[in-house]
Formats: sequence, structure tokens, C-alpha cells
Amino acid sequence: MTNMNLELPVGFRYSGLAAGIKESKALDLAIVVSDENCVAAGVYTKNLVRATSIVWNKQITPSDQVRAVFINSGNANACTGKQGEDDNRKIAIELSSQLNTQPNQILVLATGIIGQHLPMDKIMPAISTAVDGLGSDKANFDLACRAIVTTDSGPKTASRTFELGKSSIRIAGMAKGAGMIGPKMATLLCVIMTDAGVNQQQAQSALQQAVDASFNRISVEGHTSTNDAVLLMSSSNSDASVGQQEFKVFTDELTSLCIELARMVPLDGEGAKHLITIDVFGAVNDNQADAIARTVANSNLVKTAVTGGDPNWGRIVSAIGYSERVELDPQTISLSMNGFLLFQNGSPVSFDAAEVSQSLNSQTETKIEIKIGFGSGQARHWTSDLTIDYVKFNSEYST
Amino acid sequence: MTNMNLELPVGFRYSGLAAGIKESKALDLAIVVSDENCVAAGVYTKNLVRATSIVWNKQITPSDQVRAVFINSGNANACTGKQGEDDNRKIAIELSSQLNTQPNQILVLATGIIGQHLPMDKIMPAISTAVDGLGSDKANFDLACRAIVTTDSGPKTASRTFELGKSSIRIAGMAKGAGMIGPKMATLLCVIMTDAGVNQQQAQSALQQAVDASFNRISVEGHTSTNDAVLLMSSSNSDASVGQQEFKVFTDELTSLCIELARMVPLDGEGAKHLITIDVFGAVNDNQADAIARTVANSNLVKTAVTGGDPNWGRIVSAIGYSERVELDPQTISLSMNGFLLFQNGSPVSFDAAEVSQSLNSQTETKIEIKIGFGSGQARHWTSDLTIDYVKFNSEYST
Repeated sequence: MTNMNLELPVGFRYSGLAAGIKESKALDLAIVVSDENCVAAGVYTKNLVRATSIVWNKQITPSDQVRAVFINSGNANACTGKQGEDDNRKIAIELSSQLNTQPNQILVLATGIIGQHLPMDKIMPAISTAVDGLGSDKANFDLACRAIVTTDSGPKTASRTFELGKSSIRIAGMAKGAGMIGPKMATLLCVIMTDAGVNQQQAQSALQQAVDASFNRISVEGHTSTNDAVLLMSSSNSDASVGQQEFKVFTDELTSLCIELARMVPLDGEGAKHLITIDVFGAVNDNQADAIARTVANSNLVKTAVTGGDPNWGRIVSAIGYSERVELDPQTISLSMNGFLLFQNGSPVSFDAAEVSQSLNSQTETKIEIKIGFGSGQARHWTSDLTIDYVKFNSEYST
Repeated sequence: MTNMNLELPVGFRYSGLAAGIKESKALDLAIVVSDENCVAAGVYTKNLVRATSIVWNKQITPSDQVRAVFINSGNANACTGKQGEDDNRKIAIELSSQLNTQPNQILVLATGIIGQHLPMDKIMPAISTAVDGLGSDKANFDLACRAIVTTDSGPKTASRTFELGKSSIRIAGMAKGAGMIGPKMATLLCVIMTDAGVNQQQAQSALQQAVDASFNRISVEGHTSTNDAVLLMSSSNSDASVGQQEFKVFTDELTSLCIELARMVPLDGEGAKHLITIDVFGAVNDNQADAIARTVANSNLVKTAVTGGDPNWGRIVSAIGYSERVELDPQTISLSMNGFLLFQNGSPVSFDAAEVSQSLNSQTETKIEIKIGFGSGQARHWTSDLTIDYVKFNSEYST
């Protein structure tokens, strides 16, 4: 459920409805509208095969003229050729017409099945219905949040309220994602609204920093989607003037919010029973620490060990060893799980396997701490374990 | 079962027994002995965390003074610190003493649990028993083949007999491997015997070429082990003199044998129901084709689609797109599964999903053919699908 304690930024309205794009008849179409032209920044998938909506948005952001985001959660409109581009443009034209603005002021997000054409007969009439349903209260925000999810167990939201100069600033974000989640890019869909007075360059810079520390450090199975996007929209309606120091405060708050949202993704990973947090310390530099954390996070053998509550640290150490382009010496590596030291300076440590196993089985979060002993580089990643339900779900999920 | 039609090279003897290293009491110790000093080449894991035996072997090969290989399949002797090194040396000393030779003429291979010390009380007395049991016939070869496997469903063997100059040459290989199989290195354990008259440089060169086209192109879950090794031993007892043209014939035969053995690994992958062959054509160059094939091979979403008999080509195309350091344009990509064209020049092709699904479900081998449309680079990879049984096995396999 959406956290109803969150405070919404001023200047935005929300709508969500079931247009029939999903066969399940669940909510599948959302729009977020800014009352005035707003600042918008975007970070997008690095997949070379990009959905039509991503190509569209990349031509627009960063911008200070954006009015709305259109989101459908039933069809990715990816790998759909020229017709997919035409369909995307028709949606932007229709929504801009309803809002008395221009198509290039409309951002578009999509998620769902790849390679099928959008059901335009269902989408086009639903756009005016969605505009009619716009509202700025929490019930409307909640409808939009629920309309963007797919295999998620529920909506993912977070908010921050803080002082910036003499103003009170709000940031609120909605995200979706539970599968096809891979690192090294902006993952999944996320729309973040704020009323902080940042300009478009500041918005883009703050968002890139926040995403690098959050959504770019999570995975479910490491498969980068064609449609991943994180958007930041600022209505700039507060009277805060953002200088260098305030920009840092804003970026820190934004990063904290993105981390809160990002952690929800592997925790809600398809079939997942554990959120695995991997901390790497003492690598040659942060980039090498990052490579090690990613490699451990993407190992099916590490994931299944956690699934089984098995303190099988050999699988972790061997994953560390095949990380690409890193320097290390096995004799200086140490490793702990949930605070239990299992491997120290290249040699096994005797430990009570039943006790560690009990800790792994009884806690939803598994903490893996790796010390490389080579320098001061560090990185943190989050991933999910790999369960029978993941395989069941993804071998039964049909085109 | 071992293929009993194979012809064994002259000059080698084999032994296999149950030393009690495995709790199951299954066969777990094998030795392969050359009657005279033989040529030996090795290709080893690129994992930076290497088992003690790998570090040992790398100091020896290539060589023309090798007498024997000692293999245990119950304990990897990896991440075991200084005691692990001492244990490995003791084994080489004991076996060399039994064979009236030197420790640095003994190669050592190990596979099994990581991070536990070798049960030397069981291994040391078993060495003389193994030497007593040496024999050159197929029953002995079969015992050794069965003593090196772990989670494999059975022994993996292949052989070639061919004319080289005026001589008849034999190559016979034994391999093990069903899990912790990742590309970009020599995977798993494999010992290949021949009586071709190659020198140590030729043996090393031929083996590297053969491994690059075979064991380096397979995966089960992409996790590179600490203990992977492929050894080639040539008794050089034939009277064949190997010149440039004969070297090519030998390398081709060796490569063909390695491919036959390598394909057995993902086919026997833990829980696997399908062997997936991925062919990439038309990439900018072979390296980029290789990167694309590896990325598709390592996608859990592609693997589970095949498990479910689902022609979900969108997962394949999105995996192509996040391959690292490749150039491509989605508009020139085409893709087929089991010969059915599903995606052509960036657009979906209408196809009978039930018919393709029936083909995927009814055949053990799944063929994915990808055309990038950018150049002449090509590559082939083999992997297994990802099933509930893989997760079950690896979350229940305990330290």
C-alpha cells in the first residue's frame, strides 16, 4: 500500500485507471501533470535496444517546459518498429491537445510485454478519461502509483520533507519493478516530483548522482530492460532559491529517497525471500569495489545459497575472484555474513554453521560484508535471492 | 556411461577408487599415469581466487617431463591458506615417490567443496592403493572417468582416431562439470590423453585453440570456478612427426573432441532440461559476436523462457541490447528460434506461438540464431536452461 503519511509537492496532479491494456483488467494507465511548465530530468536505460518511449524522452529531457508524463504498464512498446514510434507520437499529441500544450512537452513511459503493438483502440479514448480524473490529493497519487506496477506486490512510494533555505521542500516518488532488473543503468520506472526550485541542469545533475547511488546499484537477475527510466519533475513553485550548498542538501535528500525506493525493488523481486545487501571495502578504488559487488550480486550460486540459508562463503569468494578488471590477492580477502566472520585473510574461520544458517533464515535482509584489503575503494549493492518461485514465475509468464 | 567404443591412446594407465573424501562413499580419487615422461599442456581458470592445485600446475605446464595427474572429486582445496598448499605438496610427494619420479612431474586437479581442508588421513593411504590398481584397459579408464565426477549424471568422455602422416593417432578425454560453469576461462575439469607426437609448445597451442572454441563457450550459470582446468597429455609414443599441416589436423581433431565434451556440460547442467545453442552472425567482429552470445547465454530470463517452452524473443533482444562494448542498431537485428523467424530487421514477425512452443518443448536442444546485420563477426555458445530443480539443488546443497 502507498504510505499515506507522505507529503506531496505542490503543483502536481495525478490520475490512474484501467484502460484494458492488461488482460487482467487491473489499473494500467497513469498520468502525472504539472500545473505549469516544469523542470524535468531523466536517466534512462543503457540498453542499446531502447523502447520507443525512451528514444522520445531522450530528445526532451532535461527541459524546463515539461507538462506531463504518460505511463502505461501493460505494454512496453519496445521492438515494435515504425508503428511503435507512430503510436507513441499519437499518444503525446492526444494528451498535449487535452492539456492545451505541445507534444514535445509530454514524456512517455511504458512497461510490459516486449514486441507487441499498443492497443491504441483502448489507449486513445482513455486519455481524456484520465485527464478528467486528475486530482492533487493522496487518493489520486495512490491511483497513479497503483496504475504503474506490473509484477510488483504493490506500489512503491517514498517521500521527503526538509528545509531548504527558508522554504519547506517536498519530494515524492513512485516506482515500479520486480523483474528484468539489472545494474549499470537507470533501472525500472520511477517518477519523482518535487517543488524545489532547481533549474534543469541542477535537476539532471542531482538525479544522475542519486540514481548512481541507488537504482544503478540494484538487481534482481541482472537483465537490463529496454524501458528503464527514472524521471524527476520539479514544479519550482516554492520560493526556494537553490545555491551550491542548498543543491547539496537537495541532492542528498533526493539520493536518500532514491535509495529507499531502490531497495524496495529487490526486496519485492519476483519470488524473492531475501534482500541481500553487499558491502565491499578496501578495493583499489570505488570502481573496482563496484565491479566486485555487482559480480557477487549477479551470481546465481550466491543467490541460491542465501535462499537455502546456507553460509556457503566459498561461492562468494569465487565470485569475487572472477570479477572483471579488478586487482586483488586472495590472501587479503575477509568476508562476513550477517556479522559472522567466515573467511579471514585468505583462510577459513571456524564458525557455528547452524547459528549462521539460523540468522540467514530468520531475517529478511542478508548482509554480506567483503574486505579486499588492498585500498580504500568501497561500494554497496542490493539484490534479491533466487527462489523456485522466480523460476516458476518466469517460465510460466507467457508471451 | 562411458562410451566403450572409444580407442585409448597408447602409453597411459588409469585408476579410480573411493577414498572416503565424499561422504556418499562414491568414487572420488583418480590417477592417470604416463608410462614415460610425457608432454603436458594446461589451460586454467581465470578466476583470481585459484585453488592450490591450479597454482601448483601453472608452475609446471607446459612440460615434457610430466608423469601423472592426481584428481580428487570430493574437496576443491581452494581458499584453504597455507595448510592447503602443504597438503597439495604432500600428495605430489607421495605419488611421485610411489612412481619413482619427482613431485614437479605430478599435476593435481581437485573439485568439490570450497574452504575445507583435505582429509589427508583418507587421501594419503589411498594413493598407494590407487597406484596398485593402475591399468591401461577400458575398465580402468572407466573407473577413473567415474571417479572425477561430482553432480554430473555420469561420466563425460569422447575420443578421436585419425591418420596423421603415416601413423594412426588416438585422442581420448574425460571431463566433469554440471554446475559453477561460467565462460571466459577454461571451465571445469578435463583430462585429455593422446599419443600424437606433439612437443610441449604445440600441445599448449593446440589446447588453447581447442579450449577457446569449446570449454570457453559454455555456461550453466556463468559462475567461474576456482578449480577449472583442462589438461592435455601426449605420450608421444607414436612415430608421427608433427609438421605444420599435421599440427592443423591434430588441432582440428582436438577441437572437435573438446566441443563434443563441452556440449555435454550444459546438457548435464544441474536441473537442466534443454541445451541452448546460441549462434550470432553479422556482428562487427568475432569478439563482439562473442560478447552478445555470452550475454544472451547468461540471462536468467532467456533461460527460464526456454524452460517454459516460451518463444519470448523480447527477452533475447533485450539481452542482446545490454551486451557490453558492442555496436549494433536494433533496426538491423533479426532472430529465430528452432528455425522459426520471430523478429526481423527490428520489427516483430507474426508467427504461430503454439507451434514454436511445441518445438521448444519437444526437443532437448534449443537453437537461437541471431543476425546483427552489421559485419561478418560470428560466435557460438552453449548453455543450459534454468529450472526449478537448479534452484532446489543449489539452495539445498549445503556447506
